[in-house]
Formats: sequence, C-alpha cells, structure tokens
Amino acid sequence: MHKGNARAFTNIALIKYWGKKDETLILPMNNSLSLTLDAFYTETEVIFDESYTKDIFYLDNQLQEEKATMKISQFLNLVRELAGTSCYAKVTSKNFVPTAAGLASSASGLAALAAACNQALDLQLSDKDLSRLARRGSGSACRSIFGGFVEWEQGNDDLTSFAHKLSSDNWENELAMLFVLVNDQEKDVSSRDGMRRTVETSSFYSGWLADAPKDLAKAKHAIQEKNFTALGEVAEANCLKMHGTTLAATPPFTYWSSDSLKAMQAVRQLRSTGIDCYFTMDAGPNVKVLVEKKNIPHVKAYLETLFDSAQLVTAYAGPGIEIL
Amino acid sequence: MHKGNARAFTNIALIKYWGKKDETLILPMNNSLSLTLDAFYTETEVIFDESYTKDIFYLDNQLQEEKATMKISQFLNLVRELAGTSCYAKVTSKNFVPTAAGLASSASGLAALAAACNQALDLQLSDKDLSRLARRGSGSACRSIFGGFVEWEQGNDDLTSFAHKLSSDNWENELAMLFVLVNDQEKDVSSRDGMRRTVETSSFYSGWLADAPKDLAKAKHAIQEKNFTALGEVAEANCLKMHGTTLAATPPFTYWSSDSLKAMQAVRQLRSTGIDCYFTMDAGPNVKVLVEKKNIPHVKAYLETLFDSAQLVTAYAGPGIEIL
Repeated sequence: MHKGNARAFTNIALIKYWGKKDETLILPMNNSLSLTLDAFYTETEVIFDESYTKDIFYLDNQLQEEKATMKISQFLNLVRELAGTSCYAKVTSKNFVPTAAGLASSASGLAALAAACNQALDLQLSDKDLSRLARRGSGSACRSIFGGFVEWEQGNDDLTSFAHKLSSDNWENELAMLFVLVNDQEKDVSSRDGMRRTVETSSFYSGWLADAPKDLAKAKHAIQEKNFTALGEVAEANCLKMHGTTLAATPPFTYWSSDSLKAMQAVRQLRSTGIDCYFTMDAGPNVKVLVEKKNIPHVKAYLETLFDSAQLVTAYAGPGIEIL
Repeated sequence: MHKGNARAFTNIALIKYWGKKDETLILPMNNSLSLTLDAFYTETEVIFDESYTKDIFYLDNQLQEEKATMKISQFLNLVRELAGTSCYAKVTSKNFVPTAAGLASSASGLAALAAACNQALDLQLSDKDLSRLARRGSGSACRSIFGGFVEWEQGNDDLTSFAHKLSSDNWENELAMLFVLVNDQEKDVSSRDGMRRTVETSSFYSGWLADAPKDLAKAKHAIQEKNFTALGEVAEANCLKMHGTTLAATPPFTYWSSDSLKAMQAVRQLRSTGIDCYFTMDAGPNVKVLVEKKNIPHVKAYLETLFDSAQLVTAYAGPGIEIL
C-alpha cells in the first residue's frame, strides 16, 4: 500500500490562460500569471494498492460516477507510467470552498492529486516536474503548485510547459482578493468548451494573442515595482479582453450576468471615489476584486450595500502545495 | 426668405457602423445596414434670411448655446456652399421621443435638417445626394433619408459614400423593434469618441473589419429570403462583436449596464422557450429587441415582468424623410 496526502490552493489568473495549442498535452496559447489564494483549497488522499481492481474516486464524501472517475483515471495513468506501476488507486478529495461559492476548482483539485501521487509513489518530482504533471490534469493546476505570484510558461512541448514562482519580495502579502459570488448556477459553456470555441471561431482571438505577451510584461514589471495601480489596470484590461473574445465567437457567448456588471460597475465607482481596486473574472459570472489590504474595509462596506454579505469572501495570498 | 420643413425618422443598425476612415468627410470603415423606425423622429424647420446676422438654433423650444449651434453652423456652411449663398439661418428642431428615452438621435436630426435645407434653398438634390449631405452632419443620418431596410455603402470619398434603400418586398412591415430603455444617464464615452478609441487602440478592431462584410452579406441574404431567424442571429452576433471591440481598447470601456445584461438574458430566455427574438444595442445601455409583429404580445408580457412598462416602447418600420 502506497499512500500520499496533500493540500493545494486555488489560484486566480491576473493574466489569463485562454486557449490551448495542444489539447492532449494541455499546452496553452500564451503565458499566464496568477495569484495563489488561501481561501479555497482541496485536500486529497491517494492510496495505491495491489488489491484494488479499479480506480475509485470520492469527492466530498460522495463516491463519484464513471465520468468523473474516468478523468481521474486518465491522470492516474500518467502517474502510473511515471512510476512503472499498474496499481489501481483510491482517491479521496475534499474541496474547501464557502457554501454556494460555485468555485470548486479543478486547479486546486488536480494540483493536490499530483502532489499526493508524488508522495505516495515516491516519485521525487521537482516542483517544476510536479507542475508539468499537474498541468496534464488541468492546465491551470500547474500554477497551484506554487504560492504567491506564479507564471505559467507556455513552452513548446510537455517538457517546456510549466509554472514557476515569481520573485516578489512577499509583496503579495499586502494584497487581497474579494470574491463577489453572484451566481452558482451550472455554466452554459464550460471553460474548456469556451476556449475551444473561441480559438476556433473568434475573429478577435488573434488580437488576444498579440496583446497577451504585452499584458504579461506589464504585470511582471508592476510586480517588480510593487505598483498596485499598474498591476490592477493591466489585470482588469486583460480580463475584459479575454471576455471580449467570446463575443466574436460563432455562436457568440458570454460568462457575464447582470450581477457581474453590477459588481464591475461598483469597482469603477469605488475607483472614481479614489479607492484603488480592480476586477477580474474567469469563465463564470463571479467577480474577483483585487485590492490592497488596507482598503478591504472600505471596499467591503460598499459592496455590502449592493450584495448580501454571504456573497462576499475575502481571500489573501496563499502558499503552494502542502504535504499532509 | 427661404423656408423648408422636414421630418426624418431614426434608424437602428442591424449591421453596425463602427469606426471612421475619414473623420472630416465621415467615411465609415465598413458598410452598415439599418431599419428605419416610426417611433422616434425629428421635425426641423429652417429659414434662410438676409436679415439674420448669425445662425440660430432652437431645439425643443430651447435656444441652444454656442457649442450646439456651432455643429449646426458647420453643417449649414456645407449647404451654403452648395447653394452659393452666404445667408444665415434659423433652425427650429423638435425631437419626438418618449420621455426619458435618452434616444435623441443625431441621425434623425441631421437627416431632417438636410432635407429642410434642400427644400428651403431649392437644391433639388436626389435622395442619393441628400444622403451624402446628411452623412456630413452625422454618419448614420445618411440612412435616415430612406425608409425600411437601408444599406450605407462606405465608398471611398465624398461622392461614393451614401445610403440606399434595400428592396425587401415590404417584409419590414411584418417586423417590430421593442426598445428596452434601461438608462438615460449621460454617456461616459460618446459614440464618436468610442469608435475613435476603438479604431486607434483595440487589437480586436481588425477582426471586426474582417467579419463586417460577411455579416452584411448574411443580413442582406436573410432580408432577400425573409428569413427572420437568420436576420436576427446575424444582427445579434454583429452587435456583440461591436461591443466586444471596446473591451480591448486602451483604456477598455463598455456601454453595457447591469440592466442591459438583464434584457439580453431575457431575450435568450424567450428564445429558449421557442419565441424567436434577438437583441441589438448601440453606443449606450438601451437594448432593442427585434421581433416579428405576431410575437410582440408574448415578448412584451415577459419583459414587463422584468422592467417597468414605461421602459418599453414598441417601434415599427418607418418611412424615409417627409417634407412638411
């Protein structure tokens, strides 16, 4: 019996991953940059044992059906190949997310699973190779191996596509992200399908690709300079650009809801009163507000005039993977 | 004393005009296609008289200040050049729009003024030349010379850029547009500034230009075939694309408000229940729902569950300019 147990935190991209150049290896079309957060995480235990006759997957104490288990099995096959074993495994995962968050993230889930497997089978993977492995499970999981600001280098193949931590002099500890949870309905278009449809049909996608490296350079420079305004501006612009690409897809689609616009407008309103804060959004209607810690009370108080306080969750910079 | 008096109706583009290639001549970057509507119009009287010592402009019974009068004077200068006169003029305009519509349109305004001047000075301009003249006052005004479905051919210079009516076998008389008036606040970014910023800075603009002729061809084909679904789908997609371009501008901006999203979502919801309707939006937060007349009661009833009935205005296909 080989056992591993790990925790991984979710990450939110400030420069987005949006589009794959290789769907099998999960190689992205552009570099991305994220902040790992402490508020949402996954704990995963994996046990490889000769006595198992198939892979078994428990998520939040529920035995999962074939479809969800298949995705895990495909990932475990990669691990088994690395380890030279044919053992089946039992995977037990718990997502720690606020009720109704609708944020169960494949990023923290697959990063925790990769780390648990690394421990269980004593693969002795470096963080870089662990990042490569996690990437095969879910692209953005490769960033959740690390804490703080993280860059995912797109690379050209399996060997060269991985994430690494950006040096930041711990500046991330002065920052926070306020989650505005506006909707936990099932998505119309998954992020996987959304990015595929956009790459294949949107006439805006080439513009996205042309701008992404510029946005990334601006964000890295802002982190180096600890320039919050510059980081916020480029993060918000990059998010709007990502969401703009979907409007030229065939058929067009959007992840925005009416409440998403309300939250964005609130952020603009706060800025117009001199409070420096910026929004970002992923493939769903939730809005995440990047803010300096010192401004949290003010931003939160204003958002509470527009949303239920149960819809607001404050997250701080989080660590990389932890072995439990 | 030379006097003219004309009425012109507003038009809503189904394939949008978005970006100029010549700011002075007002030559657009792409052909556009509109539907002239009966619900909103402008009546304008113009009097040229030797006794006047300057141009005077009344709008809705209010004497206008220098800035608004200057814009009219610049247009009158073009007319005076055409007529070979140096007479000043008194212009008296009335906008007929529902209270709080926020839809006072420069399209109907400048089309009415052009037609009134044509009459007053006996310029005997053809509709085509009247369209060219109106274009100099406000780009989309060139489309309001005609009723029904109208195409504005971008052209290459002042002579070749004008609108013409599309033959449609009066199919437009079976259609309607429901206006959802969600906001009458002053715009943050005027349409003029918005299109300029987009042309100059948005990495999505080349994608817009690449798609516009394809969208136009689809729309013209749909009109020929009287295919409402095809016309609605391309109009909605073209509108989303236009609004997508602003999200990649520097700085990014949007004309959408929270209520705009609510109205768009309502249209998608209606479609999912089998009611064929489509939205379009211009450089502001109002949403216009294209619908077949037979479906107006159903669409209106649903929208009335989400908006005040004062926010809803039904418009039908309207005529071209009328001499009063």
